[in-house]
Amino acid sequence: MTEKPIPDIVIGRLPIYLRALQHMKQENRQVTSSQELGERLGISAAQIRKDLSQFGEFGKQGTGYNIDFLAKKLQEILHMHKVWDVAIVGAGDIGSALARYQGFSERGFEIKLIFDNNPAKVGTQIDRFTIRDSVNLTSDIAGANIKIAMISVPANQAQEVADQLVAAGIRSILTYAPVSLTVPLEVHVQYIDPVIHLQRMTYYLE
Amino acid sequence: MTEKPIPDIVIGRLPIYLRALQHMKQENRQVTSSQELGERLGISAAQIRKDLSQFGEFGKQGTGYNIDFLAKKLQEILHMHKVWDVAIVGAGDIGSALARYQGFSERGFEIKLIFDNNPAKVGTQIDRFTIRDSVNLTSDIAGANIKIAMISVPANQAQEVADQLVAAGIRSILTYAPVSLTVPLEVHVQYIDPVIHLQRMTYYLE
Repeated sequence: MTEKPIPDIVIGRLPIYLRALQHMKQENRQVTSSQELGERLGISAAQIRKDLSQFGEFGKQGTGYNIDFLAKKLQEILHMHKVWDVAIVGAGDIGSALARYQGFSERGFEIKLIFDNNPAKVGTQIDRFTIRDSVNLTSDIAGANIKIAMISVPANQAQEVADQLVAAGIRSILTYAPVSLTVPLEVHVQYIDPVIHLQRMTYYLE
Repeated sequence: MTEKPIPDIVIGRLPIYLRALQHMKQENRQVTSSQELGERLGISAAQIRKDLSQFGEFGKQGTGYNIDFLAKKLQEILHMHKVWDVAIVGAGDIGSALARYQGFSERGFEIKLIFDNNPAKVGTQIDRFTIRDSVNLTSDIAGANIKIAMISVPANQAQEVADQLVAAGIRSILTYAPVSLTVPLEVHVQYIDPVIHLQRMTYYLE
């Protein structure tokens, strides 16, 4: 492995490769190629080879990639050799859907805590989770040593929640609130806003 | 406006600029700069100026951008001068949350139809929507002349749904199913998979 930093855009593609490899494993496949991966993902084979080559030699010219081996390597690179605990802040429609979503535990993440600031919700259940009071957010998250959080509160509360999460030691934030967050450099933020995706596509319509 | 195609990655940033400008409008602001926008968004001022310059002259050196004017221009470029109708396929947790989400209508999209293939759900209500039977998906969507759809079905059903949507005339698909879709070149697909975002960030943890 080289020591120079890998561009974040390359890092961003690795989970997509990993997901495709895991689907292939489910299909009981054993070997794939950058061509096949590229066709599945709409990414050029050359781009895939270039991305993977930044981390070492994972395939042999002419014989392709061993799916299981490459998936394991990508999991290592992405630090997915362990299960990561996650906190959710905001128990509305989206937060509740996230709390119930089975797809996290299958892919390396375990929801541990969910918070809301609505007294009518605090103490009630979503599946196996009891909704906690947001007033204890910082101490509860710090106490549980959780490093990853998802924000699903209204836009006008998102920055305040982000500030509390940073104070609690959170290092990665995935936010569903449609607003850009300001956090220290060492904290990473990813955004999910369906309208942004839709508007990107209407450019191509008519 | 120039005639050469604009890179998709530039198009992808325009909705983010637009969202920030709309927040500034809500704050009753009238003028901004590429510096200020850049600080809000974590994007360099030079990148923002370069992106916007691809579409014309929107600001004056030294006086910045008129927020209202630039927002209107971006809406035009993104074809957001009209409200776009949207169909949802899959009335589970995510589909239901999408159907109830108020943020679409405020930003140019109106949910019109929602489908599910579960007989127990067909005919029941989510807010003002009556869940329709997926067997009529193609004819209902074509009949309503809808061009944009969101997929919120399990991964193993997503490709079949995508095929039906394409047959119905859908041109833009936003999918929440964690699987890559194969569609004709003229159809655009955007993906929302929270695990992909989380894995991109665990790379930077520890």
